[in-house]
Amino acid sequence: MSLYSETPSAALLPSGFSDLLPGEAEAEARGIACVMEAFSRHGYERVRPPMLEFETSLLNGSGSALSTQTFRLMDPSSHRMMALRPDMTTQIARIASVRLQDAPRPLRLSYSGSCIVIGTPGREADRQVSQAGIELIGPDSAQADAEVVALGATALEELGIKGVSFDLSMPALALGLIESAIPAADQDELIQALNRKDAASVAELGGPIAEMLAVMLQAAGPADRALDMLASLDFPVGVRPHFERLVASVAAIRERAPSLRLTVDPVDFRGWQYHTGLCITVFSTTSREELGRGGRYVAGQEPACGLTLRPQALLRAAPVPPARPRCYVPVRLGGEDMAALHAQGFATVSALEADADPAAEARHLRCTHFWRDGAVHAL
Amino acid sequence: MSLYSETPSAALLPSGFSDLLPGEAEAEARGIACVMEAFSRHGYERVRPPMLEFETSLLNGSGSALSTQTFRLMDPSSHRMMALRPDMTTQIARIASVRLQDAPRPLRLSYSGSCIVIGTPGREADRQVSQAGIELIGPDSAQADAEVVALGATALEELGIKGVSFDLSMPALALGLIESAIPAADQDELIQALNRKDAASVAELGGPIAEMLAVMLQAAGPADRALDMLASLDFPVGVRPHFERLVASVAAIRERAPSLRLTVDPVDFRGWQYHTGLCITVFSTTSREELGRGGRYVAGQEPACGLTLRPQALLRAAPVPPARPRCYVPVRLGGEDMAALHAQGFATVSALEADADPAAEARHLRCTHFWRDGAVHAL
Repeated sequence: MSLYSETPSAALLPSGFSDLLPGEAEAEARGIACVMEAFSRHGYERVRPPMLEFETSLLNGSGSALSTQTFRLMDPSSHRMMALRPDMTTQIARIASVRLQDAPRPLRLSYSGSCIVIGTPGREADRQVSQAGIELIGPDSAQADAEVVALGATALEELGIKGVSFDLSMPALALGLIESAIPAADQDELIQALNRKDAASVAELGGPIAEMLAVMLQAAGPADRALDMLASLDFPVGVRPHFERLVASVAAIRERAPSLRLTVDPVDFRGWQYHTGLCITVFSTTSREELGRGGRYVAGQEPACGLTLRPQALLRAAPVPPARPRCYVPVRLGGEDMAALHAQGFATVSALEADADPAAEARHLRCTHFWRDGAVHAL
Repeated sequence: MSLYSETPSAALLPSGFSDLLPGEAEAEARGIACVMEAFSRHGYERVRPPMLEFETSLLNGSGSALSTQTFRLMDPSSHRMMALRPDMTTQIARIASVRLQDAPRPLRLSYSGSCIVIGTPGREADRQVSQAGIELIGPDSAQADAEVVALGATALEELGIKGVSFDLSMPALALGLIESAIPAADQDELIQALNRKDAASVAELGGPIAEMLAVMLQAAGPADRALDMLASLDFPVGVRPHFERLVASVAAIRERAPSLRLTVDPVDFRGWQYHTGLCITVFSTTSREELGRGGRYVAGQEPACGLTLRPQALLRAAPVPPARPRCYVPVRLGGEDMAALHAQGFATVSALEADADPAAEARHLRCTHFWRDGAVHAL
């Protein structure tokens, strides 16, 4: 019996899951290797958590925000529910606060791997999502925020991605302002209006802070202009530190990455599920997709800041790396000649029998070169 | 709320699933990159199938042999059952026979990724299994068998694994002999006896082929001696081609890899689920575990031969690569100095604030070097 009995219907994949074919798969692997190398060079050490864990550990604490996106499985061994990871940050937080609790701080960890999300029926989006990221665990400072952003920018630069923009937000700023001035029962409607950037409703629902919120809505854009506009606002004492920290983090990022495009949206709370401070979204002018996201959160008992890049999105934004030239070689080419071809950067594609017309066979096998009479010939 | 609320019980992982910590995870990634690079240099192009598929495609054809080891999930989008891959070869066969049906043959594909198996309750074995492998699809020849074995040996050599042994078997040879001479009802008991290497039971149950099977049992060992012993046996006409192919494959392997240790076990049928010809198991004298396995099978309608290495086992057998030296650097070290350190192979670990005693902090952070007064100092 054959290993795969071809029928067209059997070959369909569930929506959101796909094959990467030659070229695509190589580009993804190279892209991940490139960003992981950048992380490693800056002292971030790789960890590799498993694809699944017990539900109680994977959806622990604020990780439960991802509960509705998580596939579950019964473990026949323990009779407990396991869950496929929808995200790796909870796992890194677990490793930092349990397995590496005695490792020195600041603790710098990197990771890459696939996550699986349930998705939204009818919406065509990836449900197997590659991640490659960093977490900086221990310090809570503008310098720590800046290291994470600057290293993310370095990794994207090394991939050759142009026009990168880091979009910063600080949900606690607007949320704190709203909590200080608006009755609890009315807060949700106002937050929805801000999420829609609906200035008319914000004016109507904003009560005593309507004018401040209007300025915050208008401020969204390039970081320097945004911070200038926010500086004119009279934030309550309990909220003002969030603004000051945003200013400090932007200044620290500027110092490390002076040419990086930074924007600030002071009324962005969408999609931030476990973050407590600065939130980061990464875009590029060469792509409409989000290339990554991250920000500040609490890992176990400790402050932490992280950034997760999405290799699938990076590939669509990055220039295509040149393919390795392929040289068709005879079935019994000697080891030295083979090694010399590899040293020149060729992939060798061996004949499996004696061959009357190596040029034709090389062309058939999509080679760029072939070997004859002791030398390489281009096709 | 914190992302991971530390409680010791929440940190337990299901048996067979584990974290790789710094050092281990880096070694695994380097090991996979090393073997994938060897495959790529020899013209094997990477594909990357998804972690899960519909059950009907993943357990299609003889892939159903893996059914009892496969976790299933309901897809809320299609209301069909999906399955987590227990093995990647079925997926590669699907890609070859559907997505790449028009690609030229021989088709050489490589892959790496994690597979998930249900395992055996109570047995402590990995249930998340990394794989890195090759499939050579199209030709059915001793030269094709030999290319797969020789490339596997090359990959292991580049990882620095010593004392590698490729154990070959050809289950069709003994099975064909048994089918030709033993009533169907008695075959199973005889096969069990052969699997146990139980010479007394084989003599008792072997009827007219008892003597031949006794020689085959004794033949297991170094390939040349084994083939010499088998050559004296008078195999039935329908079975003899399996022996001749085994001889030809061994000869072709010898030609490509003269110093490779080869053994032959002519009565090994354990664990071969979809294989149809030569079966390959890889061991090393530095480890008791199987490092990989593979062999000949049918992919869709086509002959194919593959080999899957197990990176987790490779790591336990391979020498530990030297760690990258780590240099502690001041918070505002210039980009040129940083780049020079990276070019010298250092990972840089940045201070996040001004630092009175960089040597002490470097030691605390497990650095090997630190930067002071414009130069690197070893600790």
